[in-house]
Amino acid sequence: MKSFIGKYTFDVETFQVDYTGGLSFGFLANKMLITAGNHADERGFGKARLNADGKTWVLSRLAIEMNEYPAEGERYYVETWVEGVTRLFTSRNFRVLDKEGNAIGYARSTWALIDIETRQPADLTTLYDGELAAYSHDAECPIKGVSRARVSTTEPSGEFMPLYCDIDYNGHLNSVKYIEHILNCLPLDIFRSHTIHRVEVSYSAECFYREHLAVYIDKKSEDHEYDVEIRKDAGEVACRAKIIFKQK
Amino acid sequence: MKSFIGKYTFDVETFQVDYTGGLSFGFLANKMLITAGNHADERGFGKARLNADGKTWVLSRLAIEMNEYPAEGERYYVETWVEGVTRLFTSRNFRVLDKEGNAIGYARSTWALIDIETRQPADLTTLYDGELAAYSHDAECPIKGVSRARVSTTEPSGEFMPLYCDIDYNGHLNSVKYIEHILNCLPLDIFRSHTIHRVEVSYSAECFYREHLAVYIDKKSEDHEYDVEIRKDAGEVACRAKIIFKQK
Repeated sequence: MKSFIGKYTFDVETFQVDYTGGLSFGFLANKMLITAGNHADERGFGKARLNADGKTWVLSRLAIEMNEYPAEGERYYVETWVEGVTRLFTSRNFRVLDKEGNAIGYARSTWALIDIETRQPADLTTLYDGELAAYSHDAECPIKGVSRARVSTTEPSGEFMPLYCDIDYNGHLNSVKYIEHILNCLPLDIFRSHTIHRVEVSYSAECFYREHLAVYIDKKSEDHEYDVEIRKDAGEVACRAKIIFKQK
Repeated sequence: MKSFIGKYTFDVETFQVDYTGGLSFGFLANKMLITAGNHADERGFGKARLNADGKTWVLSRLAIEMNEYPAEGERYYVETWVEGVTRLFTSRNFRVLDKEGNAIGYARSTWALIDIETRQPADLTTLYDGELAAYSHDAECPIKGVSRARVSTTEPSGEFMPLYCDIDYNGHLNSVKYIEHILNCLPLDIFRSHTIHRVEVSYSAECFYREHLAVYIDKKSEDHEYDVEIRKDAGEVACRAKIIFKQK
């Protein structure tokens, strides 16, 4: 068996920063998903093996909480491990370390495994003779999981359609692109005076190429906490999210 | 003095591929611009030093021609060097190598140096006592420079506004995002049956946050060659481009 925790090294490259010079949140979230994929691959329950068996991982919920961000040119590390496994969901946690090894952020994610043809969930406790479950590990992750965003506004703050650069190999809107499209709809000034402290996303429907989507945002407090829904034209919620900023 | 040619190593990570599984063109172009920045930094005419002196590099023209793309997980290399320097422009070329060191693509770029305050061009031949000019180097780059795209259609194929995730630290649309927004407006099927063989971009105006932009596209041939203009509302051309595909 391999170690419970996988540790991966990254450097903040030019173009991975946003217009204020901090590591772009979308890039950070992508790196976390990369470590999830690598960690799973290296332990025998990765996408390649599962796809060959007609199954695929689906990200259901994601909460990322950052206290600091590495700057352009700086090295950082992402650790990830499987927290637990139930029949329908597995939870995977993350810890982000700065170049000196100090924890600067954490994340919690929840995944289902579905059959590619039938879209039905698979039983995770028995996956590959319990190999996934055997990697369950209890390490510190002092942040809350996803709560429930509540949006009451009936006026969208923005709209978009998933286009070529937004979609993954299934033709669906890429998980991180939901977040980027939400950030695009927030007031630009907020990114100058604040950093993103916490992002929660709860995915409820796949979004397709050129499908019209609207972003509804309720501002919750003076501290810049926003509850968000992305809705399809018929009203179906594609995802719920919460974005919490903190002053720089 | 350092070597004329800088060589940089990259790996194609998950999420750097497009929906067909090939290295995303936007990521590749970003990597080239990263090598340009690193090469210049390492030789004393990079952004940090220039910004401190009130100047900045502006990308004027870019032509990238790829015969093959590295696949997900594969290593590749980008080489870059200064080809020549005139008073107003410097040309920088690129060569892309696959994991075995075979040339799989080339690029040519043209840059101006402007004063950040006045937006006036600086004389490149005398920059830092001719240090930039001293790095001029003649290495093989067997592709043509940017030609002139000609667009006659009056019907836009798409439109967009630069949003938070599109803009750089100047608040302008990032150079590579012009290309991604153009690719978003092409027919999706083309990416399944073809790869991008060549992209030419000629930048003529800066685009700003939430400025409305329209993408005009003329299909030039059965071989899927497209001439493109991004225009502002008053009709000003922000960039001209040519995208040439080849069958997979």
